[in-house]
Amino acid sequence: MNITIIGLGLMGGSMAIDLRKRNFAKKIFGVDSDILHAETAKNIGLVDEIVDLETGINSADLIILATPVDATINMLPNIMNKIDSQIITDVCSTKYKICELIKEHPKRKNFVASHPMAGTEYSGPWAAISHLYDGKSTIICNKEESSNIAIKVVEDLYGALNMRIIHMDAKSHDVHAAYVSHISHISSFALALTVLEKEKDEKHIFNMAGGGFRSTVRLAKSSSDMWTPIFNQNSENIIDVLDTYISKLQEFKERISNNSKEEINTMILDANKIKRIIS
Amino acid sequence: MNITIIGLGLMGGSMAIDLRKRNFAKKIFGVDSDILHAETAKNIGLVDEIVDLETGINSADLIILATPVDATINMLPNIMNKIDSQIITDVCSTKYKICELIKEHPKRKNFVASHPMAGTEYSGPWAAISHLYDGKSTIICNKEESSNIAIKVVEDLYGALNMRIIHMDAKSHDVHAAYVSHISHISSFALALTVLEKEKDEKHIFNMAGGGFRSTVRLAKSSSDMWTPIFNQNSENIIDVLDTYISKLQEFKERISNNSKEEINTMILDANKIKRIIS
Repeated sequence: MNITIIGLGLMGGSMAIDLRKRNFAKKIFGVDSDILHAETAKNIGLVDEIVDLETGINSADLIILATPVDATINMLPNIMNKIDSQIITDVCSTKYKICELIKEHPKRKNFVASHPMAGTEYSGPWAAISHLYDGKSTIICNKEESSNIAIKVVEDLYGALNMRIIHMDAKSHDVHAAYVSHISHISSFALALTVLEKEKDEKHIFNMAGGGFRSTVRLAKSSSDMWTPIFNQNSENIIDVLDTYISKLQEFKERISNNSKEEINTMILDANKIKRIIS
Repeated sequence: MNITIIGLGLMGGSMAIDLRKRNFAKKIFGVDSDILHAETAKNIGLVDEIVDLETGINSADLIILATPVDATINMLPNIMNKIDSQIITDVCSTKYKICELIKEHPKRKNFVASHPMAGTEYSGPWAAISHLYDGKSTIICNKEESSNIAIKVVEDLYGALNMRIIHMDAKSHDVHAAYVSHISHISSFALALTVLEKEKDEKHIFNMAGGGFRSTVRLAKSSSDMWTPIFNQNSENIIDVLDTYISKLQEFKERISNNSKEEINTMILDANKIKRIIS
């Protein structure tokens, strides 16, 4: 199968590596508006050829749109205007507005809304790695709006990436993504900002940061190009969960101020219940 | 050297493993008020012998107090009343109140206040592992209040554990520990509580949790026996940094509500600066 990947960063680049290795892709065309990214992707062998968008669309059986959600929303209707029988999928972390946007498009059935839930805190073609997707989940949304053949091709794609496929409607997806992914990123960005503001002497951060701090602050290295539009797209759900998060922190603060040991203990024991789910 | 470890959990147990392997300890005596912990530590070979506190004190050249900070504060003056030339150190995450407590004790010079900054989210003798301390930092506080020989023995101890030694006064230690360690734990406990409250269907957490959520929520598995007393001991510094943390989250919330993309972008780029320090 000929594949065109639009957006040659961590997500698109990592797909390219394993789709080629596992013989799912015969030829991979790459499209990226950033010349440095495009050239790097070609030089390190992620793609066979860098092409313009028009050529990319025309040369592919399957188009993977692996750009941040704002760029995806900008480009998707135009690409769908130009396709014939090509199948197209995206990898964005928010799904509702994308699905609404192209709901009535005559080529709607050629599109599969998907969210492979994998990543690292790094970005760009340099960050692309093999096995990024192995064993993780991918969410396919509003399956009934796509044709059976489009669903089959995209499920095969994620099968080749060793992903577990989950179906969900786009609206629910965005609610759950806010809970288990988007809030983690805000929590981590805010932690980095806090520590950088409070700890004027960076030497102390370097010297004293143990594994705990490193692990909670890891996501704070994530790309603003990717995350600003996600926060914008999913603002309602994110604000809802952020309110709960802030209120939990305020509860901690109050109980610590009042020296309410019993109550702090109870909160920690309740938090420990996450062990049941995340081993 | 004969060593008595009081408190046979993750910290004390992991020390026991490497101090024996690396021939720093000739014989290791264990003391634990929890019979199950004591028996387990003996059965899995962490210690040579389980003894009562009195025997533990009398049999040791070096006593390592590896209990939560409230228990340490309870026991330390009594142990110091009973020692002769034995050297004693602790491993607590807060240092100021401990140092104040025994400041005028006639055996003050035999005590070294230390905080090896290592750990995992697990606890108990079952959680003890080799190499826990390798390559991490340990903070020794108020060095001038200990005798030279006590400092030498404790620095050799941490040398055997392959730790980097940093000196700091106890008050500064507690400020910096609040910034780079204690706040991370609160951030993570609150995240677990939030997700458990919002996401009623635990299946979704299990299915959708990627590496990002796992890494930010990891510390939420930490022991309440250890953390409740830390929050209590270091409440002033923790509340100060918690205030900043909550205000950063509120800034995010406001900017997301107002759809201020430029400003969200700036906050994320500022948070990204943590990369300079934590690779």
